[in-house]
Amino acid sequence: MKAIAKTLLTLTSLLFINACGADNATDYVWRKLALNNTVLLTLPHGKVVIELAPQFSPKHVAQFTELTQQGFYNGTKFYRVIDGFVAQAGPKDGSAKDKSVALLAMESAWQTDKNWSFTPIQKQDLFAQQTGFKDGFALAYQADAKAGQGKGWLTHCPGTLAMARGNEADSASSHFYFVIGQAPRYLDGIMSIFGRVVYGMQHVQAIQRTEVVEGDYAVDHRDFTKIISMQLMSDVPKAEQIHLEVENTESSQFAERVVKRRKRDNAFFYKKPPPVLDVCQIPIRTRRVK
Amino acid sequence: MKAIAKTLLTLTSLLFINACGADNATDYVWRKLALNNTVLLTLPHGKVVIELAPQFSPKHVAQFTELTQQGFYNGTKFYRVIDGFVAQAGPKDGSAKDKSVALLAMESAWQTDKNWSFTPIQKQDLFAQQTGFKDGFALAYQADAKAGQGKGWLTHCPGTLAMARGNEADSASSHFYFVIGQAPRYLDGIMSIFGRVVYGMQHVQAIQRTEVVEGDYAVDHRDFTKIISMQLMSDVPKAEQIHLEVENTESSQFAERVVKRRKRDNAFFYKKPPPVLDVCQIPIRTRRVK
Repeated sequence: MKAIAKTLLTLTSLLFINACGADNATDYVWRKLALNNTVLLTLPHGKVVIELAPQFSPKHVAQFTELTQQGFYNGTKFYRVIDGFVAQAGPKDGSAKDKSVALLAMESAWQTDKNWSFTPIQKQDLFAQQTGFKDGFALAYQADAKAGQGKGWLTHCPGTLAMARGNEADSASSHFYFVIGQAPRYLDGIMSIFGRVVYGMQHVQAIQRTEVVEGDYAVDHRDFTKIISMQLMSDVPKAEQIHLEVENTESSQFAERVVKRRKRDNAFFYKKPPPVLDVCQIPIRTRRVK
Repeated sequence: MKAIAKTLLTLTSLLFINACGADNATDYVWRKLALNNTVLLTLPHGKVVIELAPQFSPKHVAQFTELTQQGFYNGTKFYRVIDGFVAQAGPKDGSAKDKSVALLAMESAWQTDKNWSFTPIQKQDLFAQQTGFKDGFALAYQADAKAGQGKGWLTHCPGTLAMARGNEADSASSHFYFVIGQAPRYLDGIMSIFGRVVYGMQHVQAIQRTEVVEGDYAVDHRDFTKIISMQLMSDVPKAEQIHLEVENTESSQFAERVVKRRKRDNAFFYKKPPPVLDVCQIPIRTRRVK
């Protein structure tokens, strides 16, 4: 039995290599993350890796990357951490450091044409006509009256990274937040999402909450979680780099996994749930590689 | 100004006392949790309080309470903790301790008649015809063809406490799990939910994950989070008891808050989100009292 398994594994590996080597290959299961599009956030209690999304929010990614490379976030604190909602960090509000950063125009949605595609997940999701994935990012889609055209926007899910802002649409600068609770989908389309946690989400979940329930002891600001460092992975000394691959959401294997997940076709489901999928409740796998 | 505020406060207090004292009073904003219906879970890194739901799952609550009072869970570990999904604990699978506990029949849904009521939240939720709250618990509802009759069931949300089981419906005994990620609503109606976290959810979120991504270092089982103690709050020495009140989801004030939340009627929402609500994304407030 073991021998057969080994042969199959070898064959699969060969097929995998061939698929990756082909010129127009899109059907690879894993996608390697580029080191200059990945950020290493070092917290006192663990390491977190973020994949950036320049294809969706180029200006936010450019500014965040620049600030990261300047060491802007090193030593800043998560000052607004609400359990079940978000963990937000940035320099002291109104400080010289805070004011030194340019405001960004909102990047929350994009027009699509007939050449644009995504992996569909669910029609008539509570918040959108259609949900799906593109490059591992959860999104929503709304078709236009014009055939083949529409609008796409990234959705808030646990692990989503977005820029905080004031009341005005174009008022984000450097303060950012991670979603740490049930997806606050009502923020979709009115915030600039520019990345997602691909590794170490448990450490993001463990960031010290700053708000407590009424009647409870306040959390001392000295206990707020500090960012030890925020670095572009390509700037991290080689020995400390974390190399990752994430599931390719455009692969046929991912599509098959989605079909299976919708069917819940195993013995545990003695009664089948409705054949629907919450786009924020589909884990996109990550693996560490050398 | 202060004087007026004080008078108003006094009047409100009097009204509050009157309302609570009246026989059919339902319109109080806060509901005090009974100490014998509340469980104190002490983890190495913090204290967690659970409200039990005997009105929905009486046999599961009875068994969990009995086991808790026997000290059954003291020293057991969270052995299956998957980031974004659940934290599960219980005695060693197949051990004498494990086998000593009676199996429970599923308690996942109940029939309703015209005398039953709940606080509605959302029609045509992705997973159910209708969602809502009853006694602070998120639920789903499906009307029968017969007027006034229907079926209700509790839904999985972050903080939900349910009994784990094997493939058979009636195979739960002592192993339990907390939901720590995006609501796995596909488990609704096929698991017995019997409580929810009302305090210290951040500590549940910080339970050591036991599963890691492919290629990462395995977590040593000696690092798994241990339950220091699980006690019925009424059995806890008085000085260490945590007294809580939770928002009364049957109050008109809660209903008003839901209306406001749906409207998103403040300046931050320069563009209004769809007027829908995810039942798992409405925090039910808790406060500590003496």
